[in-house]
Amino acid sequence: LSRRTRQADPAELVDRVLAGDRRAAARLISMVEAGAAQVQAAGFGFASQGPVLRAAVELLAPRSGAAAVLGVTGAPGVGKSTLCDRLVAAERAAGRTVGVLAVDPSSPLTGGALLGDRVRMQAHALDPGVFIRSMATRGRLGGLAWATPQAVRVLDAAGCELVVVETAGVGQTEVEIAGQADTTVVVLAPGLGDAVQVAKAGLLEVADVLVVNKADRDGAARLVRDLKEMLALGNTGGWRVPVLTTVAERGDGVAELGGALAAHRAHLEADGRAVLRRRRLARAAGEVRELAVAALRAGLAEPAAGAELTALAERVVAGELGPYAAADQLLGRRAAAPLG
Amino acid sequence: LSRRTRQADPAELVDRVLAGDRRAAARLISMVEAGAAQVQAAGFGFASQGPVLRAAVELLAPRSGAAAVLGVTGAPGVGKSTLCDRLVAAERAAGRTVGVLAVDPSSPLTGGALLGDRVRMQAHALDPGVFIRSMATRGRLGGLAWATPQAVRVLDAAGCELVVVETAGVGQTEVEIAGQADTTVVVLAPGLGDAVQVAKAGLLEVADVLVVNKADRDGAARLVRDLKEMLALGNTGGWRVPVLTTVAERGDGVAELGGALAAHRAHLEADGRAVLRRRRLARAAGEVRELAVAALRAGLAEPAAGAELTALAERVVAGELGPYAAADQLLGRRAAAPLG
Repeated sequence: LSRRTRQADPAELVDRVLAGDRRAAARLISMVEAGAAQVQAAGFGFASQGPVLRAAVELLAPRSGAAAVLGVTGAPGVGKSTLCDRLVAAERAAGRTVGVLAVDPSSPLTGGALLGDRVRMQAHALDPGVFIRSMATRGRLGGLAWATPQAVRVLDAAGCELVVVETAGVGQTEVEIAGQADTTVVVLAPGLGDAVQVAKAGLLEVADVLVVNKADRDGAARLVRDLKEMLALGNTGGWRVPVLTTVAERGDGVAELGGALAAHRAHLEADGRAVLRRRRLARAAGEVRELAVAALRAGLAEPAAGAELTALAERVVAGELGPYAAADQLLGRRAAAPLG
Repeated sequence: LSRRTRQADPAELVDRVLAGDRRAAARLISMVEAGAAQVQAAGFGFASQGPVLRAAVELLAPRSGAAAVLGVTGAPGVGKSTLCDRLVAAERAAGRTVGVLAVDPSSPLTGGALLGDRVRMQAHALDPGVFIRSMATRGRLGGLAWATPQAVRVLDAAGCELVVVETAGVGQTEVEIAGQADTTVVVLAPGLGDAVQVAKAGLLEVADVLVVNKADRDGAARLVRDLKEMLALGNTGGWRVPVLTTVAERGDGVAELGGALAAHRAHLEADGRAVLRRRRLARAAGEVRELAVAALRAGLAEPAAGAELTALAERVVAGELGPYAAADQLLGRRAAAPLG
């Protein structure tokens, strides 16, 4: 605990991350996580390590951007984690270093993310080429969009050639985060949502590769057929989204999935360069936007802004001003340009 | 569905809400809920009903503020809902109209909030003096702080003398929301978190009344004793926080709880007027702040801001600029006043 709370030197921390020091990377991601917890808590300001985190991320920024980023998303229970573990093993067999960021909307009471860490670590614990980190969102998904790009940046700078971002495909935020990867895999399983539900959740839009896992179960062939039909309706641009089947627990189909991912990577580095560029821009833009929104939120908790906010709130309580008009005034907007 | 998507006339909707029309109130709260879902989804702009909602809330603002607001929070499983139902029944027996806003961090897949509605509605379905509404957060707690004050405003304007805001006491946001009520009840139960955990979760700070529910279970007396000891350590100001025991399922202790709530109300209207005023200001300030933050977020998705954001993101991707510095620039801040 004392190591955590002691104020770190950002330059030293960054040097260690760039040298591939796992503990330094873990410490920086912990700061990202602590920052994310504060982002949603308006009025509480930033985490105590905020300035260190800021300085470290700024120092890392020009030294990151080399990693390939893979998003993996899908409903709980489809077997994303098992599939990710198999993919990690395949990448390691090919000699590549891998970072996994598992964004887990776990119960704040059960600490599911920690359990996930333990289970995963068993397979890869002794392998220095794998860095696995769960980020528990603890009911604060608002911080997820803030935290993920920064955490990816840390793993990237730490030398991971591939960074896997695994999110539960249950909310718009998670789907968007997975969709901001270079390549996004959407995982389904028979009996856990049909093709129409997947389309409604916005998962088809972000998928570069569709995987029907647990393909030994009833309904797999039907799910594959439905997905192919739905894909045929949409315009998939220069890349044809494949629908693969896996049984991740047995390793079936994992090699084919690896092949599809390599093919998409090759596409991004040839005809799809504009796509890759657009996605990297979207990721950076999302990172900047979330930092700006969080800064505004924190700024409104500062004494000066707080006084203005209190004065406006007094007028709202008195019924002299509506809350939207008060927000306009707080942002210095004229009534002529309403927020609504 | 067609009724929902048809653009409403805000003035007509507000007139109906002020006349106590439940369907109009429900429709306006649905708009709040839709808005909340969009708030977290940066880049998606506001809900299509956003301008109608804005106009309606602004019209309602000077016509609301009469309701007493009661926050009820506590961990899942302590029996908050049952206790709320008992309190509603007692309020109804005393002739007061009640609105209940159950903010339910339910699984996005199971739709727990809807189930909750159904169970609750059975008891009060035929009573026009009760309006019960669950707001499903669907994994998007970010919208909760945005939605709740507006939804409370609607119920208040619709004539509810008491508005009960029930939140799961599992995250900072929920605890804060419950804590912004005029009176906040924190519910515990033996075996579901001890006094230290309750203190750590920030629940003691917001409690005006502590309730140990399921008090017929082992450990209730110990929990009461521990809570009383912890309360003795803190400075509780002019109001002494009572620790009550209930068995909500049987109705035991509910009359005493009602008495404590009435006593706190009387305190707020006498010696505690400054407290009441501070809490109402905090509620209005929170409402305004969340509207401002959401507006900034939506603004960053607009074409003009989007172009600036994209230009900054390009420099971040190129490694010329760190993401925090880019956020500074986006907000028009000088490097001399960093965000961190």
